[in-house]
This record gives sequence, structure tokens and C-alpha cells, in this order.
Amino acid sequence: MKKILSLILVLAIGHTIQAQMSMQEQDSLNLRKLYDMSLLNGQSYEWLDHLSNQIGGRLSGSVNAQRAVEYTKAELEKLGLDKVWLQPVMVPKWTRGVQEYAYVQPSQGPTTTVNITALGGSVATPETGLRGKVIEVQGIDDLTRYGKEQIEGKIVFYNRPMRPDLIHTFEAYGGCVDQRYAGAKEAAKYGAKGVIVRSLSHKIDDNPHTGSMSYGELPNEKRIPAAAISTKDAEYLSSLLKLDPEMDFYYKMNCRNFADVESYNVIGEITGSEFPEEIIVVGGHLDSWDLGDGSHDDGAGVVQSMEVLRLFKESGLRPKRTIRVVLFMNEENGLRGGNKYAEVAREKNENHIFALESDAGGFTPRGFSFDASDAQFKKIQSWEPLFKPYLIHYFEQGGSGADIGPLKGGNIVLAGLRPDSQRYFDHHHAATDTFDAVNKRELELGAATMASLVYLVDKYGFEKIQQKDEILK
Amino acid sequence: MKKILSLILVLAIGHTIQAQMSMQEQDSLNLRKLYDMSLLNGQSYEWLDHLSNQIGGRLSGSVNAQRAVEYTKAELEKLGLDKVWLQPVMVPKWTRGVQEYAYVQPSQGPTTTVNITALGGSVATPETGLRGKVIEVQGIDDLTRYGKEQIEGKIVFYNRPMRPDLIHTFEAYGGCVDQRYAGAKEAAKYGAKGVIVRSLSHKIDDNPHTGSMSYGELPNEKRIPAAAISTKDAEYLSSLLKLDPEMDFYYKMNCRNFADVESYNVIGEITGSEFPEEIIVVGGHLDSWDLGDGSHDDGAGVVQSMEVLRLFKESGLRPKRTIRVVLFMNEENGLRGGNKYAEVAREKNENHIFALESDAGGFTPRGFSFDASDAQFKKIQSWEPLFKPYLIHYFEQGGSGADIGPLKGGNIVLAGLRPDSQRYFDHHHAATDTFDAVNKRELELGAATMASLVYLVDKYGFEKIQQKDEILK
Repeated sequence: MKKILSLILVLAIGHTIQAQMSMQEQDSLNLRKLYDMSLLNGQSYEWLDHLSNQIGGRLSGSVNAQRAVEYTKAELEKLGLDKVWLQPVMVPKWTRGVQEYAYVQPSQGPTTTVNITALGGSVATPETGLRGKVIEVQGIDDLTRYGKEQIEGKIVFYNRPMRPDLIHTFEAYGGCVDQRYAGAKEAAKYGAKGVIVRSLSHKIDDNPHTGSMSYGELPNEKRIPAAAISTKDAEYLSSLLKLDPEMDFYYKMNCRNFADVESYNVIGEITGSEFPEEIIVVGGHLDSWDLGDGSHDDGAGVVQSMEVLRLFKESGLRPKRTIRVVLFMNEENGLRGGNKYAEVAREKNENHIFALESDAGGFTPRGFSFDASDAQFKKIQSWEPLFKPYLIHYFEQGGSGADIGPLKGGNIVLAGLRPDSQRYFDHHHAATDTFDAVNKRELELGAATMASLVYLVDKYGFEKIQQKDEILK
Repeated sequence: MKKILSLILVLAIGHTIQAQMSMQEQDSLNLRKLYDMSLLNGQSYEWLDHLSNQIGGRLSGSVNAQRAVEYTKAELEKLGLDKVWLQPVMVPKWTRGVQEYAYVQPSQGPTTTVNITALGGSVATPETGLRGKVIEVQGIDDLTRYGKEQIEGKIVFYNRPMRPDLIHTFEAYGGCVDQRYAGAKEAAKYGAKGVIVRSLSHKIDDNPHTGSMSYGELPNEKRIPAAAISTKDAEYLSSLLKLDPEMDFYYKMNCRNFADVESYNVIGEITGSEFPEEIIVVGGHLDSWDLGDGSHDDGAGVVQSMEVLRLFKESGLRPKRTIRVVLFMNEENGLRGGNKYAEVAREKNENHIFALESDAGGFTPRGFSFDASDAQFKKIQSWEPLFKPYLIHYFEQGGSGADIGPLKGGNIVLAGLRPDSQRYFDHHHAATDTFDAVNKRELELGAATMASLVYLVDKYGFEKIQQKDEILK
């Protein structure tokens, strides 16, 4: 009897192992298929070419943003998805106006122009420009240290650089972005008349990097103009100030804030064959800053997300769950698209099980970061070996993406594609964020990597974490 | 008694674990130190700037190659190494002459110029250029298929592209490079009068990529001129041929082969404090092709290798074994430097335990490949966790580098740095291999990654595999 039991056990285990093996083999072949299709006949690069070179920078509320909405909707319609639609959302409208102009004027000697760009959301300078003495600080904390007596009537120059020793460049960015986002609001409280912020880039060059800023609850009359200065000119300004603290800084900007306008999230889906009510979202943001053409931020994420659905359609891998591409509007200066999408999803009581965002550039993919429970993450980790042939090795918990963030809650797993980040901030929000900086293969590898993860999530799903009230029932 | 034994065992294990922990912690701190120094105060980028922008392309036997020898020797001398010297080596000298010129002439309609470049080592065309009908083939194997009757008197156009579906781009390169290296030699046997080879690049653009070729034992009078054509013009030529098989191709090159000239490997070392006779080599090659400035191939490897020694000097991590930087001459078209170095090492009966080469571009490092025994590789794998914070994940057996290859044999472990390879062949051997294509952080991360591996090898060494005769003693 014991022998028979052992035999049954051995057979049962053998059977299970075999079934697992063939499942893994099947997955392995399907991943290979997705990568092959993306690398051999991908459409992401061609889409990006159009988005970048035929449309260009796509600031929320601009004509280009609207053109991007129409273009991507039309392209999604060509894919033969089950549904394509526009989701209306009100977005802020801010315009740069003519190019900014700035110079430094030493106490003696000639003036020198420096490269600046208005931060998104900033008020303009007076029409004749703004001139003032400069106080250099290393961050918002320094304001308390110098106090009103040293700051009032001056231009505050935030010059804390991104740390080069951090391997994850997003961490270095995170350690400096408060200067850009809240620098003007905080300096205004001390009576500053303007702020200049060192561009958030590791690279020492002439390109200023824009980005969002906010005055918070500051009344209109207290709002002061905020600009980014190129890293090279930040270093120049800093050395000049050491020699000549009484030098003047002059800048002129005629950016403007308008009332909100209507825009759209662009959405398309393949309805799931078995569990249509379980929704998987894959997305990037359609809007971009206006200095470059937004190829890395986030044209890449947009076309990769579209490619995920195209790969499913073309490969014949019919998903069990609903796979939805969402091209979010207004990530850069408002996150209105991301918020609206989550709001509508909640209203409709939709069941989102997974959302994957690509918004870290079109560089060689390294893996993903996840916002998931330990049990969910463990399941994801079991898929890691399938990605090894594609050099995808980074699977970590913590952080996903801005646009999908509002979906958080309940059982949903959130994920962010993590491409190699070393070059990202050389281009981010600057005139150098252009199509030529995106490598075709790297972009396509990213799309295939996303499609592969979506394929696995669709196939295996996630166990539902029982809510407290459900357990009590 | 049993209890006491158990206690002793527990204490002993505890002690060992603690010792291991502190060893790992120490290693972890020292790696962090190397990365910090490279990222915060590295010298590799500055060196590369000089090598690329002040010197430029450094073809063996050229004035620039000699300038690079003198510059790097002088810079190594500034580091305060224990020894710096030049190792003479005879190298081939081939010159391109004035820029090549080529056009296609359809049976009807206007001629169009196309972008070509002479392959290194090729003979010139006649002074008035070479004109002929073209036969397109997908590789050397096709020659047999078409035979002498279809090839004789024609120009053979090798047009097999690099496979885009291979994730490792070097594999795709390996699958095509025979057309470039041996295409002329083989086509000449069938009476071809010239060869045109599709550039080895994934990117479809106007830049032809040069590279080495060989006529083997072919007598001088049978040697036919060989050029690379840009990928874009390869596609153009191919479509044109389909429409008009009788079209003419014309090209003119005045490259020349000269007698060998004397050049040098540049060598510097820090003598080991405990085992000075055990030598660790780290290196790249000083020569480069002449179209760009050789920043990725292999300026990057040169400055990273120099940086490894600088990091040891500056960090105060005194190596137990001798660490030697070797800047090899003539990797591109002869490998004379690598061969000479190994030859001298054997003559002197030097004991090389490890050699690490960087010759795959200055891109984000991903890891290493090793030529090592299973036991040696197992030891290396035990260090993997130390590299995780730096996103270094690729540790594989198989392949190292061309210049250190001749050192193979006995107990030596060979290794090659493996940077991200997706963009490499966009630049390789083309006018686009320039300084601006190298990212400072990526270069510095590579140098620190190399230094870290050298640090671990120096600290722990490798067990000597006993030779048969030693065992018999």
C-alpha cells in the first residue's frame, strides 16, 4: 500500500512538473514571438517618427496636442481593436510665447547672455523684463537660513545639482525637483521677486530644461516668474556671483496661463475572451513639453503602449482579459488625464487588475518596478526566468507611474517600465528630447518587454486579496 | 559532551558567518568607493575628450596613432604608477587616401552617387575608377550557387543584413562579418573584379562602416578592391538592381598598403604588494578606424582601463597582485599588439592570472563574459550580489576579447566588459563613432565596474588548476 501511494505521488508530481514545463515552454515561445514581431516588423518607431517629426511638442491645450489625439485615435482604429474612444478631460493651458531672454550684468565689464526657459505654469516677467540682484541657495531649506532680510527684492537662484553618485538617475532627480516645483512659491514668501532654477540634468551643457511648477495657494499678485537656467550657465552664474555678488541678472518671459480647455485621453481596447470585466491597462502620456518634440517623454511610452495592442492583434494571442491602451493627456502639468481616467473607472465600477505605464524614456528596457502586495510580487518574480534571454533583469517593488497612480487601491497591481536611465535626464524636458535621440531597437525592445508582461498577467491573472468585509461575510 | 560539541559547532559557524559578513561588507564599501570616485571625480571622460577631439582617428601606423601612444604614456606617468613603458611592435600601415567616390548608372536616366568607404586593407581601384555590372548575393555561400559564369567580370554586392531579432547585437554582427572580411578573397576566385559589402549596422542611414578585410594568400595581381556601402544605399542598390539588372556601378578608391612600421603597446603597472609575480591585465586598444574619432571603438576601453589604475592609486586600495594596464596597438587590422604582448609574456615566463578587456563601446555596463573553468566561474558568480546595486547583472561564460585572446592557456581567466550593445553598431567603424555619442555617466560606470571586478580578483585570486605534470610530481 505504501509503495502504491508513493507511486501515485511520484506520478502525480511527474505529471505536474511536465504540465508546468510545457506551460513554461509555451510562454517562452510566445515571448519570443512578441519580441520577434516587435523587432522585425514593429510599428512603434514609425509612429514615433510621425508623432515627433510631423506633429512635434504637444503641450496640453495646444493645437499639437489635439493633432496627437486625432492621429493616435486614427492609428488605433486601423488596428481593428474592439473599441476606440476619446475620454474628455479639462486641461490647463499655458503658453510660452516668444523665446525667453536673459543676461548677466557684472558690476563692471560686458553683459553675457545666458540660456533660460520659463517653467511650465510660471507667470511672465513685466513686459520690460525683470532685473535684480541674485542670491544663490542650495535648496528651499536655505531660505529659512537667509531669511527675509537677505532675500527680499532679490532673485533666488536654486543651484543644487543632481547627485552624480546615485546609480538610479530618477533618485537624483527626486532629490532636486522640489526646487523647480515649489521654489517660486517658497521664495515668494520671503519677498523674492523672481527665481532661477538650475536645470535638472547631469549633463553640463547649454540646454535649459523646463518642467512643471506650482504657486499653490499663493494669490496672483504674489506670484513671481520662474525660469530654469542651463547647467552650464548655472555653473557660470555661480562662479560669477562669487567674484561679484552685486551683479545684476535680467530676464524676460512672456508666458501666459489661460482658462482650462477641453482635451482627451485616447483609449482603445481588445475585449477579453474569458474575463472581459477584468481590465489590464497599458499606457503613456500623449502631452509633452514644447522645447523638443517629446520623443522620449513620452512619445516612446505612447507608441510602445499602442504597439502592445498591435502585437496582441497581429500575433493571434487572443487575451482572456480586456487589454486597454490609455494615452493620457496632461501628465506634465496637471495629471488631469490620469485623474479623469481613474474617476471614470470608479464611477463605472470597473475592475482594473493591472496597469503598466511607460514614462521613463525609450531606452533599452531593464525591467519593471511594481506597486504590488508581497504575494502578487512573488507571482511576478516567478516569471523572471522567461525574461532572461532579453536581458530583462530588474524586478523590484516600489513605484510605478504618475498617470496610473490614481488607479491605486484594492487588488490592482501597478507597474512601470524601467529602461536604462543614464541618458534620460540629458533629454528630459529640453530641446534635446528629439526623435534622433531614440534608438529604434531600444524602443522596440521596450514595447516587446511590456507586451510580454501583459501577456503573462493576462494569462495567469492575480489572486484577489480578500477584503476585510468579504472575509467577514 | 554532545551539547558541548554542538555549542562549539554553533560558535564556529557563527564566527565564520560573522567573518564572511564583515568581508562582504568591506567589499561592498570598497565597491561603493570605486563607483563614487569614478562618478564624482572620474578622469575617463576628460581623457576620452582629448583622445577623440584633440587626436582623433588613430589608424595603426598613422601620425595620430603615434600621438595617442605619446599622450597615454604621458598620462599614465602622471598617475604615479610603479612602472610605465612602451612595448615595440611592428604594425601594418594602410592609408585611405582621398575620400572614396561611387555612383550607380542605370541603363536609362541619371546617375546617383552612393556612400561607400574602402575596407581596411583593400587595394585601390584603377586610377580612373572601376566600373562594372553588379551581382547581388546574400553571402559567400551564394558564390558557389551562381558560379564563375555569372560572377566573372562583375562586381559582387554582398547584401546580407544583420539580423534584427537577435538580442545580442554582437551575435548579429558575427553572422555577417565574413562578407566583409573574406568577401573579396572569395569573390576574386570566381573572377569578380570588385566587391561592395553592405555596412554592418542595424541602422538604415547614409554612413558606410569600414573594417578589416583580408585577401589571405591571394597573389597581388588577383586582389580586387573592396568597399562598404551604407545600409541605405545598399537597400537602394538592391531595389535598383531588381528593376534594372544591367545597371553599372562605378567606384574609385586610392587606398594603399605600405610596409610594416614600428609602433607600440602602452603599458603601466602597479606592482603587487604580496604577490607581485601574479599579473592582472586590464586593457583596450589604442588604434581605431579613421572615419570617426574612435570614441566607442575603442577610446572608451582605453580610458576605462587607465581609470582602473587611477582608481586604485587614488583610493588607497593597494593591490596584492600586480595590476597592469595594457593599451594594445593594432586590434583593428592585425591584432599585432595583442599577439606581441602575449609573446613577450611567454618569453618572460610571466604569470598572468586574469585579463579584462573593454572593447564593446562606452555604453551602460551590464556585466561581463568570461573565459574560465567552471570552478573559476563559480567563484566569480559568488561576487554577483556585490554588483547588484550598480545594476550589473550579466555574468556569463563564453568569450572575452580579441587583444587578450592570445594570453589564453593555463590558469588565466579572461573577461570582457559587456556594455549595453543595442546602439553599438550604429557607430562601429563609421563616421558616427564620435565623442558626442559617448555618455559621461555610462563611460564612468563602465570604468567603476571594471575596477570592481579587478578589485575582487586581486583580493581573492583564483585557485590554480593543477596541471597534469604537477599532479604527477
